[in-house]
Amino acid sequence: MSEMKIWRSGKTLPLERGGALKDVEIAYHTFGTLNERKDNVVWVNHALTANSDVADWWPHTVECGCFLDPDRWFVVCANIIGSCYGSTGPLSVNPDTGEPFYDSFPKLTIRDMVNAHRMLADELGIRRIHTLVGSSVGGFQALEWIAGEPERFGRLILIATDAKASPWSIAIDETQRMAILSDNSYGEHREDAARDGLAAARAIGLLTYRGPEGYNITQQDRPESCGVEEVPGSHRACTYQQYQGEKLCRRFNAYSYMTILDAFDTHDIGRGRGGVAAALSRVKADTIVVGISTDLIFTVPEMKRLAAMIPGARYEQIDSAFGHDGFLVEHDKLNALLRQ
Amino acid sequence: MSEMKIWRSGKTLPLERGGALKDVEIAYHTFGTLNERKDNVVWVNHALTANSDVADWWPHTVECGCFLDPDRWFVVCANIIGSCYGSTGPLSVNPDTGEPFYDSFPKLTIRDMVNAHRMLADELGIRRIHTLVGSSVGGFQALEWIAGEPERFGRLILIATDAKASPWSIAIDETQRMAILSDNSYGEHREDAARDGLAAARAIGLLTYRGPEGYNITQQDRPESCGVEEVPGSHRACTYQQYQGEKLCRRFNAYSYMTILDAFDTHDIGRGRGGVAAALSRVKADTIVVGISTDLIFTVPEMKRLAAMIPGARYEQIDSAFGHDGFLVEHDKLNALLRQ
Repeated sequence: MSEMKIWRSGKTLPLERGGALKDVEIAYHTFGTLNERKDNVVWVNHALTANSDVADWWPHTVECGCFLDPDRWFVVCANIIGSCYGSTGPLSVNPDTGEPFYDSFPKLTIRDMVNAHRMLADELGIRRIHTLVGSSVGGFQALEWIAGEPERFGRLILIATDAKASPWSIAIDETQRMAILSDNSYGEHREDAARDGLAAARAIGLLTYRGPEGYNITQQDRPESCGVEEVPGSHRACTYQQYQGEKLCRRFNAYSYMTILDAFDTHDIGRGRGGVAAALSRVKADTIVVGISTDLIFTVPEMKRLAAMIPGARYEQIDSAFGHDGFLVEHDKLNALLRQ
Repeated sequence: MSEMKIWRSGKTLPLERGGALKDVEIAYHTFGTLNERKDNVVWVNHALTANSDVADWWPHTVECGCFLDPDRWFVVCANIIGSCYGSTGPLSVNPDTGEPFYDSFPKLTIRDMVNAHRMLADELGIRRIHTLVGSSVGGFQALEWIAGEPERFGRLILIATDAKASPWSIAIDETQRMAILSDNSYGEHREDAARDGLAAARAIGLLTYRGPEGYNITQQDRPESCGVEEVPGSHRACTYQQYQGEKLCRRFNAYSYMTILDAFDTHDIGRGRGGVAAALSRVKADTIVVGISTDLIFTVPEMKRLAAMIPGARYEQIDSAFGHDGFLVEHDKLNALLRQ
């Protein structure tokens, strides 16, 4: 039950890969009340195609008794720039041309996204952040932010994420880009350009979010569709991939998707900070790193390595059959871990 | 050092999903010499985009002292129908129209492919097959063949394969089809239609063949390309995906690829045989099932389940960082396991 707000900053954000974004706008949600001492802020960073409404995309977290309990915490989540949920992105009007950016939107980094959110935090009068939370690309932002301002945060919760994009995750992104670019309507100046390519890209992502167990548990052909004598005409797993691809196309666009994939690949909190290990060694926050047993993207050994590089960090693991998506699905286990 | 031969059967092959292929041609290679008793035949089934030249795609197997030693065995491998390495496929001329089939090539099943190879075996005067070998989709064919003719084979070697396509593997195929179909040159009557889509599909396949460890070991950015202060302009993992996609486009075509993906999904040796367990219970061959520790497509638990369903089968495991592709990479370990 929170309304999206939009901060029209009127400010120009310089970008790490060159250029700048003028008149940056940032959409955000807040849940609960900022207390007088301003010491109850929990800042949540969202993942790839999510938005600022945490209560919507992360069920059973922003609820009484859950780890983002709005009676206790002032929860803030802002939409990343480059996205399409209210913050400046490829569908926004380029002030220089009066037309939407589409494929002329500048290339971003995770650090640019975080810099936009730092501006918002300052605007909201929030200096100290009690707890910083991020899973997946949300964790990229959390790590990037804390590496830049280690004194600002009391606690850090990292779920299924990494301090630097791995070759494996970059290969997944490149494959999605190849799918989008093989749709030759990419580049056309309309919101729904490259829909088929975007659907294929989403389907690729989904394979890596769910993994073998996830599919084999949920997408078995129903017995009635498995004629004993006949070759089945279709499979549930096919319908599922199609459905998920189309579902994303109804709420997202290929230009935002490409922008965020590109930013993903640049993620490296060690850039300009003497490397990942040096950057992580300066984290002062009380940190918990949560790995998911079947996560194909951020694997258990990598999550353990991440935890080992953060001073005093505690590693916890969630056993789940749902791979990387476990962080969205296993809210009971997450709440049990993170509630205190 | 073997020449490809083509058997122009002049025969019509009825197809499981309807229709028939007229004047079927089958390309094949043989290595070594068929002995007088005709009891030294090893039949190898090839995977998705391979060909009949085993010595080419499976290095260090068809060599003196290796498990397909041509001094000892008469090794036969035939190109699957639907492919583009000499057997009848979408680029073949449709005798009814005088034009290549392209996207009008009929839909196949793994059983159809095996039926074509059974015709070839009979033509070659080979009744009893000492050892039947198959990895990946080659294993699909091996299992399909032995389920249809359990008495014909003395030994069975199955590597990284399954008796029925799983929802997970079908989802991977569907995602590849989505990538190919998002390239709207698919359907054009030329060999190189949908090249971009095919490249994207191959890149998807590759992710699942190699997995996280494979990429993280081999595709790290070289130190010189990791400017400490600058955002890198490109990543080795991206170049690799692009390169592998283009490489396949130089030797394959989108129509054959779609045909084989479709056939993959139909794989179910239990169809018309009372289910997978019943079909496997009738296998008489001395069987070895080899799983690969990091295989993302045919996971270790599934390989163990497969072994457990075949009477007297022995399960062996190869430890490899290269996922499903381990069967091509780890020839030393395979030879050690399979030589006797």
